[in-house]
Formats: sequence, C-alpha cells, structure tokens
Amino acid sequence: MTELQNGLPKDYLRLKAQRDNRNKILSLLVVGSIAYDSVETPSGKRDMQLGGSGCFFSVSASYFTEVSIVGVIGEDFKDSDLKFLKEKNIDISGIEKTKGKTFRWSGEYMDDINTAITLDTQLNVFGNFKPKISDEHSKKPYLFLANIDPEIQNKVLESMSKKPKFVACDTMNLWIDIKKNELINLISNVDMLFINHEESRQLTSVDNSINIYEKIKNYGSDNLVIKLGEFGAKLFSQSDIFFAPAFPVKQVVDPTGAGDSFAGGFMGYIAKHGEINSEILKTATIVGSTMASFAVEDFGMNRFKTLEHNDIKERFEEFSKFTYFSPMHI
Amino acid sequence: MTELQNGLPKDYLRLKAQRDNRNKILSLLVVGSIAYDSVETPSGKRDMQLGGSGCFFSVSASYFTEVSIVGVIGEDFKDSDLKFLKEKNIDISGIEKTKGKTFRWSGEYMDDINTAITLDTQLNVFGNFKPKISDEHSKKPYLFLANIDPEIQNKVLESMSKKPKFVACDTMNLWIDIKKNELINLISNVDMLFINHEESRQLTSVDNSINIYEKIKNYGSDNLVIKLGEFGAKLFSQSDIFFAPAFPVKQVVDPTGAGDSFAGGFMGYIAKHGEINSEILKTATIVGSTMASFAVEDFGMNRFKTLEHNDIKERFEEFSKFTYFSPMHI
Repeated sequence: MTELQNGLPKDYLRLKAQRDNRNKILSLLVVGSIAYDSVETPSGKRDMQLGGSGCFFSVSASYFTEVSIVGVIGEDFKDSDLKFLKEKNIDISGIEKTKGKTFRWSGEYMDDINTAITLDTQLNVFGNFKPKISDEHSKKPYLFLANIDPEIQNKVLESMSKKPKFVACDTMNLWIDIKKNELINLISNVDMLFINHEESRQLTSVDNSINIYEKIKNYGSDNLVIKLGEFGAKLFSQSDIFFAPAFPVKQVVDPTGAGDSFAGGFMGYIAKHGEINSEILKTATIVGSTMASFAVEDFGMNRFKTLEHNDIKERFEEFSKFTYFSPMHI
Repeated sequence: MTELQNGLPKDYLRLKAQRDNRNKILSLLVVGSIAYDSVETPSGKRDMQLGGSGCFFSVSASYFTEVSIVGVIGEDFKDSDLKFLKEKNIDISGIEKTKGKTFRWSGEYMDDINTAITLDTQLNVFGNFKPKISDEHSKKPYLFLANIDPEIQNKVLESMSKKPKFVACDTMNLWIDIKKNELINLISNVDMLFINHEESRQLTSVDNSINIYEKIKNYGSDNLVIKLGEFGAKLFSQSDIFFAPAFPVKQVVDPTGAGDSFAGGFMGYIAKHGEINSEILKTATIVGSTMASFAVEDFGMNRFKTLEHNDIKERFEEFSKFTYFSPMHI
C-alpha cells in the first residue's frame, strides 16, 4: 500500500522534484530576432504581425519542451504579444526592452509563394542587439542560434558556462556575402547547421547535396539540414541521409517563419528526448516539417494561436503514408 | 512424381506457352523521339550521343517488361545504336528509317546542372513524323506517349485497336504555349500525366500541387506524376499523395533523359505487374526514381550499357532508408 504524507503519496514530492529538475536540464535556449512583419501574399495583406526567427522558433519548440528566448524589443512592443509568448510557457526573462522601435520587416510573396521579396527592413533596436545570457540560460543543454550576425552567434556560444549538449545555428545569404569567415568559424563550433537550399550552394560553392554535406562536415558541423521550402527538407548526419517531404497543405497563406518553425519543432523534439541518435534525428526532421506545415497555413503566428498538441500528433502520424511503400519484388 | 515427356516435365510446354502469352499481353508501347544529342555539362562534352524520349524510355522500361518503340530515324543512324536497342530486347520493328538526318538536339547544363539550356534543335526527319502503329502494336495494353505534338499523341491513341489498360503521356512547355487545347484534350484521354514541376504550374495556372492535381483530374486524368528533378517526384492518384526522393548520387554527370528514364521505369514496372493499385503506383514511383538516378550518372545512355537488374534491385532496396522513420511518441 502507498504510504501517504499530508494526504499525498510519500515520494510524490521527491518524484516531482526529480521530474522538474529533469525538465529543466532538458531545456532549450534560442537567441534570435523578435519582429513586427508586414506581408502581402495572394491570400491578403497584414501589417505589424508578430514575427522574427526567435519567436517562430520558440513558439514551435514550446509544443515539445521548455524553451527560453533571448532577444530585444522596442517600446512599441505590444503587451498582448508578450502575453501570447507567456501563454505558450515560453521563458521570456531573456527578452530585453530598450528605447526605440522593434525590428520591422516588410515583404511580399506575390509572384511565387515560395520566394519572399523584401520591401523594407528597419533593424531599429535589433541593430544594436548584444544578447545578454543570464547565468541560468548559460547552462541550457540545447541551444539554437537563429539567423543573426555570426559574430554575435559566436559570442553567445562563448558565453555559455558549459558546452551545450547540442548546438544548432541558422544563417542567410547576407552573412555568406559579408561575413563568410566568421560564419565558417561558427559552423566549426556547432553540431548542426540549418540552411536554405540556395544558401547551402552559395556557402559551399558546390551544387550536389552530398558534396555540400562533405564541405559542412569539413567546416566542423557533423549534422546538416538543407531546407527545401515546398519540397521539404534533407537531413545529413554521420549515419543517415534522410528526406522529409513538406506536408501537402491545401493553401499556403503566408510562408514567413516556416524555416524557423521547422527548426523549432526539430530542436524542441531533440531537447524533449534528451539524446541524439539516428532515429531521433530522423523523427525530428519529420516533426520539423510538421510544424512548418502549420506555420504556413495562416498569417504570421496565427495558426499557433489555436494549434493543439493533438493536431501535431495527428499530422505527424499522417507523414509516413506519403513516403512508405511495400518493397515488393521488382 | 512429375510425368516426363521427351525428358521434360509434361506440362512444361503448356506452362511456357502460357507465360510467353502473358508476357506478350503485359507489354508496353512507346511512341517518342529518337535523337542524337550533343551536350556539355561540368563533367565534359559529348557529341552525337544516342538520346530522345523514346530511347531513354524504352531502354529504362526494358529492365522490367517487353517494350516496343515507335519512332523515326534518318539515314545517318548508326547500326551500333540499333544493335544497342536490340540487345536490350526492345522491339524495334516500329522504328522507321527515312531520307534525311536523325533529330538532333544540342544543349548545356553549365550554370545549373538541373537546367538545360537548349543551344540548337534540328528536327530533321522528326519534323514530319507520322507514327504508324502496326496491328500488333495497336493491341498493346500499356502505352506511353512521350513528349511530342499532342495532336500526334492523340492520333496514336485513336489508332489503338482497343483501349489500352493504362495510357500515360508526357509533354513540355512548347505544347502548353502553342497547343494547350489539344494537350488538354489528350489529358482527358489518358490515365496518367508525367510533367515537370514548372510546366505543371504553367499548364494549370496554379502553384499548389494539390490544386494542380485537382485541375489535372478535371481535365480527365486520374493520375499525375510531377517530376521535381533533383528533389524527386510526387505521385497523385485517387488514393494517394506519395513522394519519392531523388536517389542521392555523388555526381550528376548528364541529366539528359532523366525524366524519360523515370517514366520508363514507372511504366515498365506497371506493365510487368499488370494491375494498377495504390501499392503498385507507389512502388512504380520509387522504381522510376531509381532508374532516373542511374541515367544521370553518365553521359547519354552510357550507364545503361553496363547496368544490370541486380544494380537496380540493390538501389531500389536502399530507397526506404531515405524516408522511413520510427513513428515514436511525439
């Protein structure tokens, strides 16, 4: 019979403390942008919607693990948007509010829903962003360095009090153009690079994905995800080449944030499981693709306002039917 | 104990005749181009190599079923090339030799290995090609109408003495530009359309693949394969959406003919099995992708000169590892 104490099983507090401690250890830190986006797509136009790589990533990851975001916002940042992040159980203690306006991006996807045309970028407070990593945050075992200046990404990594268990980064064409050496230095220090297809070619100057992975491995990262937009994603690890298709959604309303939602699902799933192996990496790729498919179904982060874990589970379970076949005699 | 006759099991001849008859019924006809291609790729330059949609298709299909090709060649056509086709057990009785030169195409893939730049097209004898379908050929149950003028494709279909069990066609941007109505009329008469990604958008004026399939179904074809080049292929049928990745080859030497080799593997596999169902269509898509991956490994049809059925089997069996994952608890 269970021994009770104050009407509760005696070892309840012990187990609860263990669990909370475990959850704390298996948690994820992201450093990235917090933005207000204005977009136009064939489905319509929206002004000043919550966006930014750090936001998409953390909201997507929040479905799988405890996530802390480090970023900067301006005086114009809406309380309702902070409330939204808090309601997703995201630790927002690393969001710094400074004088000025929040980072703003404006773009359109009119001719091709898969390609953003940037109309305007106002860095505002993000222009002077120097991430401050608290003592607690510096111990997080899973770290995602969203797309920012690779020098800043490197500084964040240096400020971790111990080497995280798994560090991933993203980047973009701008940094390949103007800070390639710093970016390659960063890649030498991470476990995984997430990068768009075109940018992976630009970075490595080769066009075959097997050779791209060889180059990334030579730079120093053992794992690579090449994001293919509407065609899904390819994972390269030391044991696998793995393809996740994009989930076929009926209408892509707004592709903004799809890549960061992918990375959020991927890293959130890794952090939840707490170990890295071939099966975990492959499943994480499918989870990432699942999360990206939700992100594009509505403007900005709207889809995540109603998305439940059960919706994710259902769509994840549908994935195998898109690629599984009976290996009959041929 | 087995009853013998002339030292052979008594029903040997009966079974052999049945099998031969069955093989004959389950055979495949292709009507398409036979060409001499000159290409330049980052791997080198080749002049006057055997090519054309009908050739790539029939050689690829020949690994799975009996295949007959209908096409036209000029006086310059090399005996060694006819011999090559014959050695693949391809029925070449439908190849007509006429006065003039064989169809010639010249192109390069220098900036992007995935995109052909046409340098020169000389239709020559292909310009007046009026396929003659023999009585025997007109009874073939599987028919592939490779990329030619949709009016000619329609005429071939009309000349079949009975409705084939499964008819597929391919097309290209030229026909969408200048003979769209004839092409849509053709699609209304086939069971499957093979088409490139960009051309599927051009044809339907929509960019989401689910909606592209809806349009193709409305035109009248129940099945669709969208060819994605380096990203593989998507199959749409009444029961499935299915994705086949491209097999990751270390070096794409010459992508010419990849799409027709895909279709050849697909249709050859279908014809071999003699029935159409969800599993057959999915496996056929993987077989198609397998055959395309061999085609690109060498110039022109060179890879098929040494390719054995066992190589195909091995690569086919590797495919599942690129997409299978353990659907763990998420």
